[in-house]
Amino acid sequence: MTPTDRVRVGVLASGGGTNLQALIDATADPSHPAELVVVGADRHKAHALQRARDASIGTFVVLKRDHPDRASFDRAIVEQLQAHGVQWVCCAGFMKVAGPPLLEAFPQRILNIHPTLLPAFPGLRPHEQVIEAGVRVSGCTVHICDEGTDTGPIVAQAVVPVLPDDDVQQLQARVLRMEHRLYPMVLRWAAEGRLQVRDRTATVHLRNGESTTLFGTDV
Amino acid sequence: MTPTDRVRVGVLASGGGTNLQALIDATADPSHPAELVVVGADRHKAHALQRARDASIGTFVVLKRDHPDRASFDRAIVEQLQAHGVQWVCCAGFMKVAGPPLLEAFPQRILNIHPTLLPAFPGLRPHEQVIEAGVRVSGCTVHICDEGTDTGPIVAQAVVPVLPDDDVQQLQARVLRMEHRLYPMVLRWAAEGRLQVRDRTATVHLRNGESTTLFGTDV
Repeated sequence: MTPTDRVRVGVLASGGGTNLQALIDATADPSHPAELVVVGADRHKAHALQRARDASIGTFVVLKRDHPDRASFDRAIVEQLQAHGVQWVCCAGFMKVAGPPLLEAFPQRILNIHPTLLPAFPGLRPHEQVIEAGVRVSGCTVHICDEGTDTGPIVAQAVVPVLPDDDVQQLQARVLRMEHRLYPMVLRWAAEGRLQVRDRTATVHLRNGESTTLFGTDV
Repeated sequence: MTPTDRVRVGVLASGGGTNLQALIDATADPSHPAELVVVGADRHKAHALQRARDASIGTFVVLKRDHPDRASFDRAIVEQLQAHGVQWVCCAGFMKVAGPPLLEAFPQRILNIHPTLLPAFPGLRPHEQVIEAGVRVSGCTVHICDEGTDTGPIVAQAVVPVLPDDDVQQLQARVLRMEHRLYPMVLRWAAEGRLQVRDRTATVHLRNGESTTLFGTDV
């Protein structure tokens, strides 16, 4: 695959960006079918921006306070992504739900990762929710974004045990290790055109040995 | 462990009773800390009754239509269980939620198994719900019964992959194989006094190598 064949991907982040780093590391190999071309944030202090600069990836910042409403904010993000020729978008700790302008500009082409086994425990404080519920398994989910909070078609999930004395930090760390495996895997499928959505169901054209379920029995 | 030391267990069922069979098989070993002493059903035709007779386990049937209300029905079940000296109750495909008379007679001592990863997909048609949601993992949950439908404290869970072309029967069969491992394991903990509930949280005093999470990567 020559560099010009690679699918151009933009990442949206708000925070530290360890999932961004996993995507940077995976796509650093020029044979990976996706190329990260820009990282956008809604905060100047998002550490994700520094990770992007360290990897010589372009960056932009769009601030909510610079826009009269949410649609205007979303359109500004779309303009930045389109200016970089982005074809797929990965949300990586981006703390806003994609609004209509983003969804319409990248139909079924915005991925998000959430650190629970959706549809269980969507939204904020996911690991706290998991521990309070007393469940024995958790994990993470990569899904296509829709207008809801963590409600879009599920592409792949990874599972980990919840151990008896887990606190939020321990559980979060265990799930993160699976997030860092799962997200680059799904981005590969997306970039290779093997991920389709129909009737709100995501289908991956899997090759031998691939699975949309990862088991984190060793993390 | 001498036979008289074994914890006396009653099983409630409505249908075929493959989970009952798994419990029968596990407790057939006289060194198992639990002994099945009676199987009750709310239908004369429940195949579980035949499984019990085949294993020389006592049976009873309590019919809803013979009772003026649900509390009376529940009290009749309690009387039967108490007449057999039952200490723990296992619901195995019992199609009724335990009412107050049962819960009060066996406080925190009624187990149930549900074929999803609770709190996701409680209630009826669980596998249909799972497939419609497009999730990539499912499994089963053993929990302590409370007044709700599949809402009580979770004791242990087993996970399996949901494969791309799964129909309900395939998924059900895969989950059942894990149910048959999970339920006898939890009953052992209960009978050994290693399962406690406090503040709606179930805790198991695990021994080396034990886990409240089973991974069905091989089923």
